[in-house]
Amino acid sequence: MLPGDMALPAAAAGGEIAALLTDLFVVLLAAKLGDELFKRIHQPAIVGEILAGVLVGPSLLGLVEPGEVLEVFAELGVVFLLFWVGLETRLSEMREVGGTALGVGILGVVLPFVAGVGFALAIGEGTATAVFVGVALVATSVGITSAVLIELGVLSGRAGRTILAAAVIDDILAMLLLAVAVGLGEEAGFDVVGLVATLSLAVGFVLFFALGGTQLLQRQPRLLHTPRFSESPLLPAVILCLGLAAFAAHIGLAAIIGAFLAGLMVAETKEQHPIEDEIAPLYAFFPPFFFAFIGMEVELGELADLETLAFLTALTALAGATKYAGARLGARSLGTDEAHVVGLGMVPRGEVGIIVAGLGTAAGVVGQQLFVVIVGMSVLTTLLIPPLLRRAVQRGVGGPPEP
Amino acid sequence: MLPGDMALPAAAAGGEIAALLTDLFVVLLAAKLGDELFKRIHQPAIVGEILAGVLVGPSLLGLVEPGEVLEVFAELGVVFLLFWVGLETRLSEMREVGGTALGVGILGVVLPFVAGVGFALAIGEGTATAVFVGVALVATSVGITSAVLIELGVLSGRAGRTILAAAVIDDILAMLLLAVAVGLGEEAGFDVVGLVATLSLAVGFVLFFALGGTQLLQRQPRLLHTPRFSESPLLPAVILCLGLAAFAAHIGLAAIIGAFLAGLMVAETKEQHPIEDEIAPLYAFFPPFFFAFIGMEVELGELADLETLAFLTALTALAGATKYAGARLGARSLGTDEAHVVGLGMVPRGEVGIIVAGLGTAAGVVGQQLFVVIVGMSVLTTLLIPPLLRRAVQRGVGGPPEP
Repeated sequence: MLPGDMALPAAAAGGEIAALLTDLFVVLLAAKLGDELFKRIHQPAIVGEILAGVLVGPSLLGLVEPGEVLEVFAELGVVFLLFWVGLETRLSEMREVGGTALGVGILGVVLPFVAGVGFALAIGEGTATAVFVGVALVATSVGITSAVLIELGVLSGRAGRTILAAAVIDDILAMLLLAVAVGLGEEAGFDVVGLVATLSLAVGFVLFFALGGTQLLQRQPRLLHTPRFSESPLLPAVILCLGLAAFAAHIGLAAIIGAFLAGLMVAETKEQHPIEDEIAPLYAFFPPFFFAFIGMEVELGELADLETLAFLTALTALAGATKYAGARLGARSLGTDEAHVVGLGMVPRGEVGIIVAGLGTAAGVVGQQLFVVIVGMSVLTTLLIPPLLRRAVQRGVGGPPEP
Repeated sequence: MLPGDMALPAAAAGGEIAALLTDLFVVLLAAKLGDELFKRIHQPAIVGEILAGVLVGPSLLGLVEPGEVLEVFAELGVVFLLFWVGLETRLSEMREVGGTALGVGILGVVLPFVAGVGFALAIGEGTATAVFVGVALVATSVGITSAVLIELGVLSGRAGRTILAAAVIDDILAMLLLAVAVGLGEEAGFDVVGLVATLSLAVGFVLFFALGGTQLLQRQPRLLHTPRFSESPLLPAVILCLGLAAFAAHIGLAAIIGAFLAGLMVAETKEQHPIEDEIAPLYAFFPPFFFAFIGMEVELGELADLETLAFLTALTALAGATKYAGARLGARSLGTDEAHVVGLGMVPRGEVGIIVAGLGTAAGVVGQQLFVVIVGMSVLTTLLIPPLLRRAVQRGVGGPPEP
């Protein structure tokens, strides 16, 4: 592309920036093509985006290396995804499913955790490692399921709301288990007082913004839309989203919990201003980076021996079966069809399993093979569930007919 | 914020991500507040955003350190800004001002370059350093001027179009001079063949997409809007923008030239789909990072001695006067008022001067004091011009009345 030596120094002007812009271009183009292709073959678009990430990532073509910048774009992807989900959700609707969601959240955490710990102990791992495997099996990636439910137009159905509320509870429990796991891994032991304080802060944060925040904006929508501010409440809303996401991440929750709460709050002002039209482009731009990034994390080369594949298959089956069983049991009051949708919807591990695996490696209790297998399991649950969920929704809850 | 020791390991989960989300939150919040404040006092909003960057950056509060992630957001800020400018521009309107713009571009490059080299030689710098000072005085930041013209609603006026077209020519000439400067700095000497090839590639790139690209999308708007693709042409348009921006950066042009060309192309399809409504939120979200980042690059501490201040004042005056004179001379056929607007509009150096200073440091010919002074000059021209431009536009070209 560079015609002569004299061009090189000048090109170096934006050399690094040029490379990063190229990464963003390649990832977005690949994700969009994967998305379009999977829509044509009547499959969930996000599966196409994840596979596009596998294709351009280090495993196959090696066009793009997942670095810090892409990670931030991926994180903003899931942040804007959950902000959008919050915008589409009314707190009153969440309250209706609260009891059921609590059952789904707790059972959907306990079963996979016990199974993961038991499985790891059975194959000869130590306690600290076993606890990490348990936590990796616990974490649900609500981003994946939300995206599929949005695509099918049933996010605001009863099953969709139950999944959302359960995912918030799930994340709080997972955070506590993770604190325990990291404590064990570093042999720091338990600090029960600290654990209770962490739990209180997390629950307090969620309740404060879910209840107080929505009340405040319901009564004072002009806080976001005051005519003294310029035309659009877009930036105030986005700033609120980033602020709560950062705060949630600082107290050990997933950033997306904060983004979801911000969405719930802003949703209360929708009658004053149709803000969804303005959030939609951000929701179109960022999430493809999230899905493609998950795919880029897969290390196909490392998975290519029989023992690892067998391990991966077993762990994936265990992760899927126990989460499905726990969540479905918790949702049994919704009836067979919707309980099935809830059970499936809680299974994808997505980025959360990958983060847990990374933390375990950092704590020195998750080895290379186990890391690769946990990442593989997270991506496999994420790839296998959307088609099943699509079918379940179309049959059970009544989505759009198969074209 | 962390209530107990047990929270720390869990918080470390997203520790780095939490810190980066916090940076994005702080920068966007500060920029928005600066923006609103400056609108209230009837000053250009972007000046408020730049000063907000100075405030939260290392110079004053030190809340945010400008790193790679913020730099990419800043770059996307000016990329989406120029994409927007391209969307608002019709090629036919650019053609009308082509001759004038050529004069503005060439005179606006020659005068500052000669003055910068002469000044640096006069104060005893070597040839290689003097050439860098000349190049730093050449570069125009069209992003700053565009933002002010958009704010005043006169981007598509004759003066605005002349500034845009001249800025493209300016950037091509600056790229060539930069190649020469870096070659001198590294004592690599001149490769005339390479230089001609670089020039041909740059001119070819601009003409190919400005003429061929717009023709193509004018005749085949369905390339972007084909019903086989999903609802919105937003992502195809954004992908085109990122692709041309990355390509421009790879061949040594500013990335924003590619973004501007992409905007020109997409503008040809506006009759099929009102895409501006969908680009607007991206245009609202990213550019504040660009303006705040410029402010964050200022090192107030380093400027705080009399000799440096005198040097800064002299260089800023020289940079402003020569660019203004050259550009105004080139635009004299537009009449006094509009030539005045064009002259002022070409003065801001913005990020381009900062990039040149950084390259000079990397090439070992720009020392610490000179670096700080060039950055200071870039930011000062950027801060001082918008209020003058605002007044000139409101008086001369007929913008909205002073409130």
